[in-house]
Amino acid sequence: MGYDFLHRLRVIESSAFIAAPLAGLTLSQFGADVIRVDTIGGGIDYGRMPRMPQPGGKGRSLYWTALNKGKRSVAIDLRKPEGRELMQALATAPGPDAGVLLTNIGTPWLAHEVLARRRADMISCTIQGNGDGSTAVDYTVNCATGYPAITGGGSVARPVNHVMPGWDIACAYQAAFAVVAAVGHRRSTGTGAELKLALSDMAFTMLSHLGVLAEAELLQQERPSIGNHLYGAFGRDFGTADGGRIMVAAISAGQWKALVACCGIADAVVAVQQSMGLDFADEAQRFDGRDAIAALVEPWFAARGQADAEAALEQHKVCWGRYSTVGELLARDRRVTLDNPVFERMVTPGIGEHLSAGSAVRAPAMQRSPTEPAALLGTHTDEVLWEVLGLDAGAVGRLHDAGTVAGPERDPSVATA
Amino acid sequence: MGYDFLHRLRVIESSAFIAAPLAGLTLSQFGADVIRVDTIGGGIDYGRMPRMPQPGGKGRSLYWTALNKGKRSVAIDLRKPEGRELMQALATAPGPDAGVLLTNIGTPWLAHEVLARRRADMISCTIQGNGDGSTAVDYTVNCATGYPAITGGGSVARPVNHVMPGWDIACAYQAAFAVVAAVGHRRSTGTGAELKLALSDMAFTMLSHLGVLAEAELLQQERPSIGNHLYGAFGRDFGTADGGRIMVAAISAGQWKALVACCGIADAVVAVQQSMGLDFADEAQRFDGRDAIAALVEPWFAARGQADAEAALEQHKVCWGRYSTVGELLARDRRVTLDNPVFERMVTPGIGEHLSAGSAVRAPAMQRSPTEPAALLGTHTDEVLWEVLGLDAGAVGRLHDAGTVAGPERDPSVATA
Repeated sequence: MGYDFLHRLRVIESSAFIAAPLAGLTLSQFGADVIRVDTIGGGIDYGRMPRMPQPGGKGRSLYWTALNKGKRSVAIDLRKPEGRELMQALATAPGPDAGVLLTNIGTPWLAHEVLARRRADMISCTIQGNGDGSTAVDYTVNCATGYPAITGGGSVARPVNHVMPGWDIACAYQAAFAVVAAVGHRRSTGTGAELKLALSDMAFTMLSHLGVLAEAELLQQERPSIGNHLYGAFGRDFGTADGGRIMVAAISAGQWKALVACCGIADAVVAVQQSMGLDFADEAQRFDGRDAIAALVEPWFAARGQADAEAALEQHKVCWGRYSTVGELLARDRRVTLDNPVFERMVTPGIGEHLSAGSAVRAPAMQRSPTEPAALLGTHTDEVLWEVLGLDAGAVGRLHDAGTVAGPERDPSVATA
Repeated sequence: MGYDFLHRLRVIESSAFIAAPLAGLTLSQFGADVIRVDTIGGGIDYGRMPRMPQPGGKGRSLYWTALNKGKRSVAIDLRKPEGRELMQALATAPGPDAGVLLTNIGTPWLAHEVLARRRADMISCTIQGNGDGSTAVDYTVNCATGYPAITGGGSVARPVNHVMPGWDIACAYQAAFAVVAAVGHRRSTGTGAELKLALSDMAFTMLSHLGVLAEAELLQQERPSIGNHLYGAFGRDFGTADGGRIMVAAISAGQWKALVACCGIADAVVAVQQSMGLDFADEAQRFDGRDAIAALVEPWFAARGQADAEAALEQHKVCWGRYSTVGELLARDRRVTLDNPVFERMVTPGIGEHLSAGSAVRAPAMQRSPTEPAALLGTHTDEVLWEVLGLDAGAVGRLHDAGTVAGPERDPSVATA
């Protein structure tokens, strides 16, 4: 779980892909009781790559199980009216710490006004592609932001997509924030809230918040496409003698002084400043002189191995980072080990034991609980129907018999079709 | 502002760069009274590019003013003990809706234990580079995640940095979420919270939440470097006859059917599936056959202009997006106009009138208020010292005379030095 800030606030989640599940995970990491309702057999991304190797492609997804740890799982046949009725009943069940729905599945029978008829102070948060309800995913939003046209030296004609699903991630945390703010507001005022968040709005509003829109409108200029140089100050990647690759950033005055001292280029910097008529104490002029500065820094890295370079960078308190693959990160970076309290070991059913993260937030004075692994679909069906809806064993048994609900035996990774 | 979910919760912000200011902006968009305290003349990123053209490089920053709209501004000489005392007093002032500090400036005199001595139920949220307090920025964290090694067809030896500051953005919303959760917890229990959030933890925990760490650990495999292809299903960018560029994604079964129908490639797809022994109904097998699928889709785009292609994609409900620069986005995309309620026109002092965004969240039943532009530094010094600390005109005047506080006349963009 993580920390008990939210006191078992109950959140019913009906979701797929990254943004909504990650929002639910975030809520669970702060103590919410997040109950994920899936259709029997799983939703459209239950088998998304990468999957565990298993005949018939039925191995569990490392992606899905990672995003859906820390939650309880209920399996319901959501095509049936009785299944939809159960889902609505779970979402709108009474209690001050209940009545919250998190979803990215814009289906009419889960619309806010439908649920608010059953529970007037309902809080629903719906993540959408576009604000008009039309579909969009991270890739089809990002292409419009201008970023691919300036990533990796690209252009509109030869754009470079990012791989990190950045807009999905932003949406997730924005949604979790909105839900918790609305819950606090409901506690004070008694009123619920309908919250909608479109992936494209997330991206385009961010272009405003970073000044990118105003730059285009007022200065009529596009950000330059400058490869791995950072914008607005000095920073770039450099290769070491033994094939390593290191990123350095000299954004603040202190970072710049540290880099100059570490590379022993103070005199050369003075000479370059004089010849170019620039003052590199000003970050914007460092940016103007970036190629000349890089030419001074390059030989320093090229003359030594990665370990020596890193030791010197550390000693001089340069702001730097090592490029690595994920395997190298796991093998060599102490920040991604149990030495870091945000990590733990987890045993996920159908997958095995592996390193896993809790909340990135550290709250030193609070107890940090371990995270429950992603259960097989339907593992908590019976207990949730009893706890939340008061259905006794007989009623739950009849729902199983009718095929309206299911337990973990119907999870695709264990079901014998 | 946006929406009044947080009822003027008072947050004192002492920050620079993206993550902490964006967290403060997010809180302000939901109704918090965010009071930004800057040292007189501004902090280290007050002049960060892009800036308005003005002699001496003193034009206001479009970046800084974008991240710091919706807040009040107090200017204090934070090098002086009396200035630090004022800052501590502001952060720890009494009241159930006060006592919240948001910062990324890890200075001892703003440490949680120092503030908690003055206010036992203090909530502080400190954004760090690394969990040990050492420096890191988005660029020096991202290089370690493995993403640059698989972006744009790159490798560890030839990495491609992203341009979107994705980890900073994630940190911002995660921090805003944590603050609001801690405020709710304090209302219930009376206890404060020390919250710490490291940029590198944000990135590395995300690798866990997306299944990337488990993949490397359990399957011993790295994600392939596949350019603009999306991972795990089918999606890529395509060029039109007139030089346009369009991203298409066929992740769900419905999106795949729509693409096949739109491009009229049903028969060819059957033939390719047979020859490759694949079933493209399975997203993972679409991924395996991505080059063959792309070869079928490519001629369809190459045979028509962008407008015709877009009309057909819309008609068939394909999931698609247009590549654009920021200027093109502003000129041609209705989602980035006043037709979209998340946008508004704003007049920022020293900058002029421009399009600006409020919260990306839509709450249809709540009133949405306009956002205040980023004021000149110190605009609210006097009113905040009166409102929060009860200092009368005489006391405030003496602080001005001693140079301990300042009003907007000392903002670098207007000061005559």
